Amino acid sequence: MAPAARTFSSEAGNSKLVITEVDDKTGYATVTLNRPPVNSLNLELLKAISQTLDDLQNNKSRGMILTSSSNTVFSAGLDIMEMYKPNQDRLRDFWSTLQDVWFKLYGSPFPTAAAINGHAPAGGCLLSLCCEYRVMCPNYTIGLNETQLGIVAPTWFQASLRNTISRRESELALTLGKMYTTDEALKVGMIDEVAESKEKALEQATNFLNRFRKISPMARAMTKQALRSKDIVELEDNRSQDIDLFVYAVNQPAVQKGLEVYLESLKKKAQK
Amino acid sequence: MAPAARTFSSEAGNSKLVITEVDDKTGYATVTLNRPPVNSLNLELLKAISQTLDDLQNNKSRGMILTSSSNTVFSAGLDIMEMYKPNQDRLRDFWSTLQDVWFKLYGSPFPTAAAINGHAPAGGCLLSLCCEYRVMCPNYTIGLNETQLGIVAPTWFQASLRNTISRRESELALTLGKMYTTDEALKVGMIDEVAESKEKALEQATNFLNRFRKISPMARAMTKQALRSKDIVELEDNRSQDIDLFVYAVNQPAVQKGLEVYLESLKKKAQK
Amino acid sequence: MAPAARTFSSEAGNSKLVITEVDDKTGYATVTLNRPPVNSLNLELLKAISQTLDDLQNNKSRGMILTSSSNTVFSAGLDIMEMYKPNQDRLRDFWSTLQDVWFKLYGSPFPTAAAINGHAPAGGCLLSLCCEYRVMCPNYTIGLNETQLGIVAPTWFQASLRNTISRRESELALTLGKMYTTDEALKVGMIDEVAESKEKALEQATNFLNRFRKISPMARAMTKQALRSKDIVELEDNRSQDIDLFVYAVNQPAVQKGLEVYLESLKKKAQK
Repeated sequence: MAPAARTFSSEAGNSKLVITEVDDKTGYATVTLNRPPVNSLNLELLKAISQTLDDLQNNKSRGMILTSSSNTVFSAGLDIMEMYKPNQDRLRDFWSTLQDVWFKLYGSPFPTAAAINGHAPAGGCLLSLCCEYRVMCPNYTIGLNETQLGIVAPTWFQASLRNTISRRESELALTLGKMYTTDEALKVGMIDEVAESKEKALEQATNFLNRFRKISPMARAMTKQALRSKDIVELEDNRSQDIDLFVYAVNQPAVQKGLEVYLESLKKKAQK
Repeated sequence: MAPAARTFSSEAGNSKLVITEVDDKTGYATVTLNRPPVNSLNLELLKAISQTLDDLQNNKSRGMILTSSSNTVFSAGLDIMEMYKPNQDRLRDFWSTLQDVWFKLYGSPFPTAAAINGHAPAGGCLLSLCCEYRVMCPNYTIGLNETQLGIVAPTWFQASLRNTISRRESELALTLGKMYTTDEALKVGMIDEVAESKEKALEQATNFLNRFRKISPMARAMTKQALRSKDIVELEDNRSQDIDLFVYAVNQPAVQKGLEVYLESLKKKAQK
Repeated sequence: MAPAARTFSSEAGNSKLVITEVDDKTGYATVTLNRPPVNSLNLELLKAISQTLDDLQNNKSRGMILTSSSNTVFSAGLDIMEMYKPNQDRLRDFWSTLQDVWFKLYGSPFPTAAAINGHAPAGGCLLSLCCEYRVMCPNYTIGLNETQLGIVAPTWFQASLRNTISRRESELALTLGKMYTTDEALKVGMIDEVAESKEKALEQATNFLNRFRKISPMARAMTKQALRSKDIVELEDNRSQDIDLFVYAVNQPAVQKGLEVYLESLKKKAQK
């Protein structure tokens, strides 16, 4: 029996990039990232996620599950095309919008769970870490692998990881840029449960949200806010410097050269 | 063979609310909460605990074990009658005294252990978390379950929990308001040992205190102070705002209504 | 087959106190503490370590392994003779140099591992905790056992421990001044691996360093810096007060008396 559901899309004018379905019985929203093939986070997708989070908060959502329309990738992380030979204004807007998404997702008053039905490197991992619970399908990988790409996960990426796994494991994970298999991620606590399929993952994420059904949403939201506020205030106090730093780093000739080499290697792969 | 012991009570004029027995051989004080039926923490009990902690510190105590005279409840937490239709001056005094107890117990120079011989929800859990070691009897429950009651555990309650269990488990525990069984509490580290009986719990708590017998009390106290001082300074810097916030919250009509409903449900239960 | 290696010593004029061998293939430096019999950390040894760390950083080292020339002791910690009836200027220099070593080792841009081939109490434990990875031979002991000696591990010693093991275990470890066996240390995460022999320990430490071979050294260094910077800034902001506090404590008559008693007990042991 299919549950009663309303489907709507973000009002950001990017109607297909994020699909939101609200179950009328539970009030939970399933938010599906839908930018084929791998949900690369470009400015438009980030704007659509940001708008979706606003919509949910304005509608006093009872809970959200974040998942992907791809069969193999949850999200491949930041779209490299936003950083290669960038328009400077758009570059600033891009990073500022990522900050917005982090503020709204990591600090959301409603409960959040990720149904990770594919690989989740870098920015994809970050989105899942901002949620309060993670269910992941087998045989994928997840991690903040920025150093593997020659870049640095900002302190607020690090904060979300340290909110999830031990400080010791965080240091190894971040310096090594380690990608964890589903089983490894479960062992260190980067995910909470394994699910056989996307359907099962959505079901188990729903079970997590259900645990809050008898909890006062206000008391819950204030408790979460108290727990996560230090991380949030740290970025709020540092927002424009954080953008400056990102823009400065991206514009370094060595970084541009690195992106060029990487993009050419992707093209060659595609031609084979 | 019964150990030599001196018994005295708090000098706060509430002689029966807290019973303190000092073992003359070891110098350890067993402090028994004694406000039947469930050691609800009202102003008088909190004042008696606060005075007891002063007495122990002034007597350069070698160690303290906190336990309950009840067979089933360690402490039921804050007394709701202090918050329902409150006298405003008494309400401020009540919260300020709870802060005092937290400062003195969480920051005590002498070693502390809780022999948790019954359920320990909310404020009862908090008292045990302020100690340095927790031994608990089987088949009881423990937790900071404030959100289950529609309220919020203040940041200093949260700090004591985060000093004990992982940051990840703390977030789940606090947002869910989860009550852990003895076995669950052991697994996540909220307690250190299980004890078959109250007698065994006192014995095992004593064994913990004995581990400090050859340690310089001064070096020990300074080390503990260094570890816990950030939490303590945070409340010290914020003490009156914390009282204001509590008083404001309690006086909200919705909270008063909630308390009324809860108290009536208790009356009905009692009449059955 | 012996690996190609250059051997050099610190240029601090203490050529034998620290032996540095750089493997020309890997670029890794093996730094061997060499102040028999137990690598007590006196001013000269600390200066030699500090100079060695400068040399490695100036040579853009790809990695460092810290080990001991002794068969039974990694390092016995601070040399008590530096604190007994001290010259006041030398005492300040001694503590300031220990701070230098901590800044340079805990904050090193290059990856670091300790091959702990012997006991590692107090300051010996600290040096290993400053590294990013610890491999330890069986049947030794390790720990910040300052309270056992009647003294207090400074907050920056505590910070390095808390970067490694859980906050809960840190409190027990530090207040009890607990020495962990190799197996116990592995269990709580104070070390990462056990190695059968010193040779194996060096090999396993090398394997850890190898995990960074394909990682951008710059991205790695910035990531480590971001993770450890709060601890480092805290001591930087407090450096001279920390020296004052140490000097004050050492000059207390009770501390001097304690050192005297301890030194006489060592003499008697030696005479047996």
